Amino acid sequence: MDATMAYEEVIVRFKQTRLLDSIRGVLEWDERVYMPPRGSAHRAEQVAYLAKVGHAKLTDPVLGQRLAQVEDTPLVKDADSVAAVNVREIRRMYDRAVKVPAALVEELARTCTRAQRAWQEARKHDDFKTFQPWLEKIVKLKREEAQAVGYRDVPYDALLDEYEPGATTAEVTHIFAALRQDLVPLVSAITAAKKQPRRDILQRDFPIERQQFFGQAAAAAIGFDFSAGRLDITAHPFCSGIGPGDCRLTTRYNARFFNEGFFGILHEAGHGIYDQGLDPEHFGTPMGSAVSLGIHESQSRLWENQVGRGRAFWEHFFPRARQGFPGTLDDISLDDWLFAINDVAPSFIRVEADEVTYNLHIILRFELEQALVGGNLAPADVPSAWNERFQKSFGLTPPSNSEGCLQDIHWSMGGLGYFPTYTLGNLFAAQFMARARQDLGDLDSDFRKGDFSRLKHWLNTHIHRPGQRYRPRDLCQRVTGQAPSHRPFVDYLKGKFLPLYGL
Amino acid sequence: MDATMAYEEVIVRFKQTRLLDSIRGVLEWDERVYMPPRGSAHRAEQVAYLAKVGHAKLTDPVLGQRLAQVEDTPLVKDADSVAAVNVREIRRMYDRAVKVPAALVEELARTCTRAQRAWQEARKHDDFKTFQPWLEKIVKLKREEAQAVGYRDVPYDALLDEYEPGATTAEVTHIFAALRQDLVPLVSAITAAKKQPRRDILQRDFPIERQQFFGQAAAAAIGFDFSAGRLDITAHPFCSGIGPGDCRLTTRYNARFFNEGFFGILHEAGHGIYDQGLDPEHFGTPMGSAVSLGIHESQSRLWENQVGRGRAFWEHFFPRARQGFPGTLDDISLDDWLFAINDVAPSFIRVEADEVTYNLHIILRFELEQALVGGNLAPADVPSAWNERFQKSFGLTPPSNSEGCLQDIHWSMGGLGYFPTYTLGNLFAAQFMARARQDLGDLDSDFRKGDFSRLKHWLNTHIHRPGQRYRPRDLCQRVTGQAPSHRPFVDYLKGKFLPLYGL
Repeated sequence: MDATMAYEEVIVRFKQTRLLDSIRGVLEWDERVYMPPRGSAHRAEQVAYLAKVGHAKLTDPVLGQRLAQVEDTPLVKDADSVAAVNVREIRRMYDRAVKVPAALVEELARTCTRAQRAWQEARKHDDFKTFQPWLEKIVKLKREEAQAVGYRDVPYDALLDEYEPGATTAEVTHIFAALRQDLVPLVSAITAAKKQPRRDILQRDFPIERQQFFGQAAAAAIGFDFSAGRLDITAHPFCSGIGPGDCRLTTRYNARFFNEGFFGILHEAGHGIYDQGLDPEHFGTPMGSAVSLGIHESQSRLWENQVGRGRAFWEHFFPRARQGFPGTLDDISLDDWLFAINDVAPSFIRVEADEVTYNLHIILRFELEQALVGGNLAPADVPSAWNERFQKSFGLTPPSNSEGCLQDIHWSMGGLGYFPTYTLGNLFAAQFMARARQDLGDLDSDFRKGDFSRLKHWLNTHIHRPGQRYRPRDLCQRVTGQAPSHRPFVDYLKGKFLPLYGL
Repeated sequence: MDATMAYEEVIVRFKQTRLLDSIRGVLEWDERVYMPPRGSAHRAEQVAYLAKVGHAKLTDPVLGQRLAQVEDTPLVKDADSVAAVNVREIRRMYDRAVKVPAALVEELARTCTRAQRAWQEARKHDDFKTFQPWLEKIVKLKREEAQAVGYRDVPYDALLDEYEPGATTAEVTHIFAALRQDLVPLVSAITAAKKQPRRDILQRDFPIERQQFFGQAAAAAIGFDFSAGRLDITAHPFCSGIGPGDCRLTTRYNARFFNEGFFGILHEAGHGIYDQGLDPEHFGTPMGSAVSLGIHESQSRLWENQVGRGRAFWEHFFPRARQGFPGTLDDISLDDWLFAINDVAPSFIRVEADEVTYNLHIILRFELEQALVGGNLAPADVPSAWNERFQKSFGLTPPSNSEGCLQDIHWSMGGLGYFPTYTLGNLFAAQFMARARQDLGDLDSDFRKGDFSRLKHWLNTHIHRPGQRYRPRDLCQRVTGQAPSHRPFVDYLKGKFLPLYGL
């Protein structure tokens, strides 16, 4: 078989695994948005079966043979060519997948579907004990996965690599340490500042139907295409890029807290704009797939924070918010509003945290996960370990596990190694935005007019369309001329928050 | 391999095909309820792939071998035993499936997913021309399927058998002819009657949110379990039994016509109660599956019409309707209401038709389908053929194709052979209900109290729990002591409508 034919077979086979993934995507979206409560056990069977079939397809020895028949041929000589990129990335996934036993994959899929339901209940009733056996099982299975995959330094490397290819625990530890060193004094200075926002503004009456309307309009304005997507309500917001023409945002609303719904929507819309910006011609292959979770998160953070919490954005949207919530904001100035939505204060819930303290939430989870995966922390001890570290980082103790270690869905999904990508996303977002501002000149005057098209186009071109042509670190280097770094992010924070707080 | 081991392998393998079907069920539900418009092409790929994989599983020669290793062994000697029933029915499906080429299955699945979207648009814009090429393709593929499956008399037999195992075109033609002979004079007498209902009652203001609330309460009252199900809005209402703990009803509302939403809900809830009444222990095997579409439809019709359009039902619900739609029904008596919801009049839309004329809609479709599948009618000529026959049967000509040949989703789903099961369902419903009334005594006094549990339990026991233990005709014989017949249905119609219209 010649290289071209072998390559074609690689693509056909890999696309089937992605089609199965996308089917699973519909099932998982449904599970979290519309499935009746008693459907959980059957859904777990469906998802486990798809995982098993998908894993069997991805680890089919014929795929390995065909990859070998393409590698080192002229077809993949140009490392940036479509074929070379697809072969490189499919090889990476194949090599990882063949190391994980099929039974473990199926068991993880089944366990995690059911554990999510258990987590939802445990969170609702603040009952860690009912979730603990699930967490124990998941940690055990993920440790087995890490052993099966292998690693150079620590087992956590094997899990992190799944979400952020090429990243290592050591590197992330290094960059997070530097970040923390800058964040801690910044948080102290801000919380000690005399000037403080009127937080109550955001806790006025924001009827949910009006939030839906306003949030959906904002998502459409920044460029999310609703003819190829939707927005629904869920317990733990996410974005699911199911395939060409079908990308789904979810959020949750709080009628007495504006930020939760609105910035949740902007955030997920940022993810959605990435998914919608992928090349549909390459759907199902690495060239039509997102680079990594860190890069994905950079897109959500960029729209949520760099754009959506900025003055220019609200110069356009604040008058519309006044109209959209009649009477609620009549006595509020744009300055009051901007200060309120950018309030920095230690708090319990990660997804509601401000831009500055947010990353301390991540660092806490990153450390706990390493301990869990390394076998240095028993799942039973998670609540006390969480609360202890939380007290150290934030000077507060969560009043309940629902507002502590039960707040996030990730562990119930088996997503150990996932959290660090959130902070990496913040750092990438700052790097990309700084570069976009250099390239595009006065973006703020676009935003003031409600025009986000030049920025979206720049992101489409530089970040979305290349798919997995470059690994995260390389993409960052190519687009920004810099390696991944905490500095642009810290510069952004200081430039924004010091003046805001009169410091 | 001994028979027991072979049987176990048959079950494991067959359950996988059903798991794939149930995954497809989620995708198809989603496609019709929540999928964004531009997701259609990708959804078609997902569904086609599942159809292909499922067909490959069902036609795996190993399944045929294992079946052969069980058949004629003591394990299946008792024809009514679980093993015998499962083997008999899996054999029937295996034999049918191996005759249909995989490429045809995949092509049909892909075509029908996309054709549904085209039908939705065509119906919305009253544009038959845009749907015509899809109909042509579907008729062509279904004719190929009929040829592949084989038949004794006419190709239509092969399609009908998929939905109503054991039924033949000749038998259905015979029973429908007898039915028509009784219906035509009944319709004439009713339309000529002096006494006529106040139709305008149903066209008052019935706000959709209130209809949702009232309809959902009624579905729950008759026994649909919402902890294991949901109710959503769609263009063409259906019920999707996805698996244990997950059964989904859909309906559509018209704020100026009460019947559409409410009786649609009761109808789909009847289907749902059947699905929820199947034995979850046997899920994924014939013993845990519905007998046929005709029997399925008998359950929806029984709740919608025999129960839901009866006096006793409304003695309970009418006071509640008055409360549920404040002010709307204050001047209306129970008699006015009962007469209005049982209005018999020739009309264009099948799903809105009354109990009497409904079956004439089916007979029209049954005849057109035979002509299409037999090659005696070109899809391009469907609109004129439809309108001509409609004029003959109803004395009316549809004002548009949307109210004529474009009104139903079935052909776009490839469901040729499906329609006759609706009228068979009406006939079975009358037979079952007559028997239940004999067995249970005064059911109406239950209904007057809003208690439907004895009837539901009787249906669970006699119809739902046996799964596919008996073929439709045998089930009817066993439960009612009669072969399928139009007489109990005609008796029911006469007993109800002649007094209602003062005849």
